[in-house]
Amino acid sequence: MRILLKVAYDGTSYCGFQVQPDAITVEGTLKTAVEGLLNSMGIVTPVELIGASRTDSGVHALGNVVVFDADIRMDAGRVAHALNTRLPDDIRIVGSVQVPDDFHPRKTDCIKTYEYRIWHSEFENPKERLYSTHLYGKLDIDAMRAAAAFIPGEKDFSSFCGAGSQAESHVRDVKSVEIITERAGAEGCAAQKSGANGRADSCTAPGVVTIRVKGTGFLYNMVRIIAGTLIEVGQGKKSPEDVKRIIDAKDRTLAGPTAPAKGLTLVGIEYPEARG
Amino acid sequence: MRILLKVAYDGTSYCGFQVQPDAITVEGTLKTAVEGLLNSMGIVTPVELIGASRTDSGVHALGNVVVFDADIRMDAGRVAHALNTRLPDDIRIVGSVQVPDDFHPRKTDCIKTYEYRIWHSEFENPKERLYSTHLYGKLDIDAMRAAAAFIPGEKDFSSFCGAGSQAESHVRDVKSVEIITERAGAEGCAAQKSGANGRADSCTAPGVVTIRVKGTGFLYNMVRIIAGTLIEVGQGKKSPEDVKRIIDAKDRTLAGPTAPAKGLTLVGIEYPEARG
Repeated sequence: MRILLKVAYDGTSYCGFQVQPDAITVEGTLKTAVEGLLNSMGIVTPVELIGASRTDSGVHALGNVVVFDADIRMDAGRVAHALNTRLPDDIRIVGSVQVPDDFHPRKTDCIKTYEYRIWHSEFENPKERLYSTHLYGKLDIDAMRAAAAFIPGEKDFSSFCGAGSQAESHVRDVKSVEIITERAGAEGCAAQKSGANGRADSCTAPGVVTIRVKGTGFLYNMVRIIAGTLIEVGQGKKSPEDVKRIIDAKDRTLAGPTAPAKGLTLVGIEYPEARG
Repeated sequence: MRILLKVAYDGTSYCGFQVQPDAITVEGTLKTAVEGLLNSMGIVTPVELIGASRTDSGVHALGNVVVFDADIRMDAGRVAHALNTRLPDDIRIVGSVQVPDDFHPRKTDCIKTYEYRIWHSEFENPKERLYSTHLYGKLDIDAMRAAAAFIPGEKDFSSFCGAGSQAESHVRDVKSVEIITERAGAEGCAAQKSGANGRADSCTAPGVVTIRVKGTGFLYNMVRIIAGTLIEVGQGKKSPEDVKRIIDAKDRTLAGPTAPAKGLTLVGIEYPEARG
């Protein structure tokens, strides 16, 4: 039988998802736990894991997906709990279910949701330091939203594709790009509004700005390059219309930098057909 | 001149705030940084730090307050940045300002805000593991709110005072106790509502439940005991009215357990008079 695991991790201590020789990875740690469980049931290993998304070093996940095959004498829903006793506390299986034997997490239509988290404040926040990138100064949220509106659609995203990509096609279907703000107390913004500048979008009350991107798939580093580009729009280094021109040009050198890995979380992967 | 520092920290790696021999504490680490800065300016040390709140081991802060005296030739607002270059990244000075020479952070009227954070889900969340306590199963938010309503006021809170307190009086003035929920997607709750149970408060969509407590001061472990007691109400082990009876009895053994330190954050301390 094929078991699907929904996997959450704090990527801080891992050299990314995918197994590598001589490096601690999420997949390698999962493989050890799965094989330990199977061996304890008398099942011969090694086992092959197939992951949905090979997140980079330092990137986090709330719902990456992994499948493996095993004739396991256990209710599939219990596998999550059984594996969690064999995993370090920065990796948790947050769901397990049996899927059809031919279900492949990378070859099945899906919608992936990523969130890029920004701590926007004069000072860093120790509790945010591992899960967001710190920015201070102007961050024009309205301009970021206007820029984000140019991104969705089925397009050639070569401009947002990191060096080292092995993808044959650079066409991807982005469903949405949202900018969500959570500010500490509305007073901060009100005070700012009545100030010399007088613009709501220049509010610098400390808080979190999240860039949420949904799509059927992404190129190498694509979400981090989208984040880096939208941040430059927020900072006034690029205009919203520049983002349309950047996409049209299909030229990576025109986009913004790749935003730091630690701000990125793979929130979840939905398989609409598999569910029905 | 007296300088007030607003201090944020991830308490995970510290044996609490207060200086102790042979233990790494937040205050000890701050003292090293402050003395290093003063020495670099030719100012003789040691220096005495006076902290507002001696948070326990594992407790976090976004805005604890510390003062020290030094004839520093520097704009007070720059002290925060100068100290941050001398501090580990799990402690940040998030503000610095000159205050009157007789300002004492524990002897000046203030309002302290604490938040106790609960990750409520079947599975633990790796990104929440250091900053919240994990609970699964029934958590009746309406009952927790009804219980919380019995707490505010100027009362003898002996029932919520941890062993080891050296306070002469157990009377404290609690201003408010709020329960705030952030659930991942409203669908989860809607589905739950239409289920067999049919009660909104039995919603178990994964998410964060925050207990926010404001008061002029607190007894030893008081916020963690309030949290532990309200959690027992949420779980149905106690009724909301039990909380009134527990307060009236002035007996620690009747209240719930002391909730784990890692879920607690000292959000901030306001000094209304000092500000005016």
